[in-house]
Amino acid sequence: MGDYRELWKSLDMDLDKHDQLCAVLPEMFGSVYLSQENRPEGMNYFNFVFSEVHGLRIKELNDHKSNGGKVLGTFCVFVPDEVILAANAISVGLCAGSQFWVEDGEKHLPRNMCPLIKAAVGAKVSGTCPYFQSCDMIIGETTCDGKKKAWEILEDFVPVHVMDLPQMKRNKDYAMWMDEIKLFIDKVEELTGNKVTVEALKAAIKVCNNKRRALKRLYDLRKFTPSPISGLDSLLISQIAFNDDPVRFTEQLNALCDELDERVKAAQGEGKKRIMITGTPMAIPNWKLHTIIEGLPAEVVVEETCTGTRYFENEVSEEGETIEDLITNLADRYLGINCACFTPNTGRIDDILRYVEEYKVDGVVYSNLSFCHSYAVEYKKVEEALKKAGIPVINIETDYSSEDAGQIKTRVEAFLEMI
Amino acid sequence: MGDYRELWKSLDMDLDKHDQLCAVLPEMFGSVYLSQENRPEGMNYFNFVFSEVHGLRIKELNDHKSNGGKVLGTFCVFVPDEVILAANAISVGLCAGSQFWVEDGEKHLPRNMCPLIKAAVGAKVSGTCPYFQSCDMIIGETTCDGKKKAWEILEDFVPVHVMDLPQMKRNKDYAMWMDEIKLFIDKVEELTGNKVTVEALKAAIKVCNNKRRALKRLYDLRKFTPSPISGLDSLLISQIAFNDDPVRFTEQLNALCDELDERVKAAQGEGKKRIMITGTPMAIPNWKLHTIIEGLPAEVVVEETCTGTRYFENEVSEEGETIEDLITNLADRYLGINCACFTPNTGRIDDILRYVEEYKVDGVVYSNLSFCHSYAVEYKKVEEALKKAGIPVINIETDYSSEDAGQIKTRVEAFLEMI
Repeated sequence: MGDYRELWKSLDMDLDKHDQLCAVLPEMFGSVYLSQENRPEGMNYFNFVFSEVHGLRIKELNDHKSNGGKVLGTFCVFVPDEVILAANAISVGLCAGSQFWVEDGEKHLPRNMCPLIKAAVGAKVSGTCPYFQSCDMIIGETTCDGKKKAWEILEDFVPVHVMDLPQMKRNKDYAMWMDEIKLFIDKVEELTGNKVTVEALKAAIKVCNNKRRALKRLYDLRKFTPSPISGLDSLLISQIAFNDDPVRFTEQLNALCDELDERVKAAQGEGKKRIMITGTPMAIPNWKLHTIIEGLPAEVVVEETCTGTRYFENEVSEEGETIEDLITNLADRYLGINCACFTPNTGRIDDILRYVEEYKVDGVVYSNLSFCHSYAVEYKKVEEALKKAGIPVINIETDYSSEDAGQIKTRVEAFLEMI
Repeated sequence: MGDYRELWKSLDMDLDKHDQLCAVLPEMFGSVYLSQENRPEGMNYFNFVFSEVHGLRIKELNDHKSNGGKVLGTFCVFVPDEVILAANAISVGLCAGSQFWVEDGEKHLPRNMCPLIKAAVGAKVSGTCPYFQSCDMIIGETTCDGKKKAWEILEDFVPVHVMDLPQMKRNKDYAMWMDEIKLFIDKVEELTGNKVTVEALKAAIKVCNNKRRALKRLYDLRKFTPSPISGLDSLLISQIAFNDDPVRFTEQLNALCDELDERVKAAQGEGKKRIMITGTPMAIPNWKLHTIIEGLPAEVVVEETCTGTRYFENEVSEEGETIEDLITNLADRYLGINCACFTPNTGRIDDILRYVEEYKVDGVVYSNLSFCHSYAVEYKKVEEALKKAGIPVINIETDYSSEDAGQIKTRVEAFLEMI
């Protein structure tokens, strides 16, 4: 990584503390990622992006800001990136996946809360996340109690706009969500000084759909036996999708998929036990569960999570001639996401059962970040449906610490032996 | 208590298990309540209601049902009782406050969840709560993740209608809440076969306002030094308010207040340290914190909780000539409640600071049911505001078990010495 200390300083970062983070990440990445055998060549781009995660991309954001552009931070797959792009702003995902930030988060939040929220708040208050520091505004939403209330804490540190996501999916909730998208457009226009025109929004929809198609292509390739790419590598790609330039990311991912096409043709053998992970998101650098599973004779072939299928499934319709039309299209696509924040959320069970077939899944790991009530309660219904379908499932609730890694490994090992 | 076994049997209750509960409650009530000295005569009514809590009132509900009436269960002060009353149905509060039900709840819900939700679900699935068993329908709401997802579990046991409470308080959220009230009216009309007419709704508003006024009168009397009634007795009255016949309850409470008026005139002395409790609701028979505090030289003079001021503050306007008018009045009053489920919720801090003055509060106990994220996160803001006002505050997170009672007592003792 180049020398970005002046840049970081300009972002009002705690350089000493940030150094501690920078000292750990490469080693962690090396042992988890670079130690994998027979990785696709196309992963080199994503390795590079990760190696420059606090460098080159931050410089790009900063250059954009120097040219009068804005950067907006998001925490949820319900916030429509299309609106941000259409106003010539850059969207960055701020969900945090490192234990490094949890301690600082706990100074402002209760300890018995989801590590993702604690880490996100910790990243901001400690001034050690250059993405957070680059944001002109963050966009919150009301997907869970923890995040909903954390915006009030973050508001003391950075401007916040909150989108009120409906908790159900009736017709009136679509209308309500359209209205929230309109308010979001107003806010983004106000912040950037740019009008979200029909043309710009249509173009942004195309950019995002192309990204979705590339991710879908990657996931479709994972349906082959054996999968031509590890779950760990797929996860890294999904994580990078939230922060990389969307056009470049799409190109690079498609190039990787070209390579994977060849791999599939040449592939032989039965592969390992095929695992679906379903549950809460895995923000960078949370590779804990994948590392454990793929350290055993198993491969993760699909993630029914926000850093998995929920991020790219279903495209936004590109039809329509007015802003109203396009807002309708956005609302339709985004409210189609089956998150546990809705009641009821039976669509998620349909998705899981469909993925079991499509990805030829041998067993399901239900992955829940500690204290996430929505996904924790929903486990029962998912378990029932999977049992009925004859698919083994194991429930793992964990946080970002490494303390329980051994115990989880033992449980997953026993689970794999059983299936 | 009379012999209600036939009645309980008709409600499909688990009689043996229910016997275990019935065996514990009177003793618990005796030691907490009847051991208090110098209680008002007017408490005899509430003692009686409690002694018949699974008897006489259940018989009343059952008689109502035999005459074609319906019983609806609620879990939240946002569900407008007026609508239920106007359809000639009876509303009962089903929030559960006993550790007795937690174990059964944990068979269906994660352990690291709020005890109130676990106990409520446990009460239903175990068939040991005659109120739950009497309900033709329960009315859920989207006030927190835990409850929102628990309705999906309960739906397998009892018909459920969920009201989607907005998570903010903008103008459009009032419109949305009015719409939810309309849907609720439709649902109640469908269930009861009775039309919610302007006259009936107006009459119901009057009944509920009278109850609010009586509770307000009780709380106003607690502003005197010393308070003419214990916090424990006030809490019991508030708890009974959720299940008793509202007209009878109001009469009896006003009679008690007449007696308290006399007590106030005759009162002497400085009283004890005056404590406000703020936080999550205390469902019957959760008297844990009040028992600890009033076992020390202190008295609880106000509860800024759902089983306290949030239940009765602000009346519904009785003006208006159409259903629309009355729905507007209901929405205005109910969305005026300052619950931590909203973001932001600064109105709660205003309430707390106002109560500090009005009730001459010496110290505040922030009481949080374990794993309630909304109230837990909001503690920081409340603490800041109280510190600024020079009012000591202590944060206590606890569940329904008695295991931590000793530790809490020690902490409260130290807190009282400090103020």
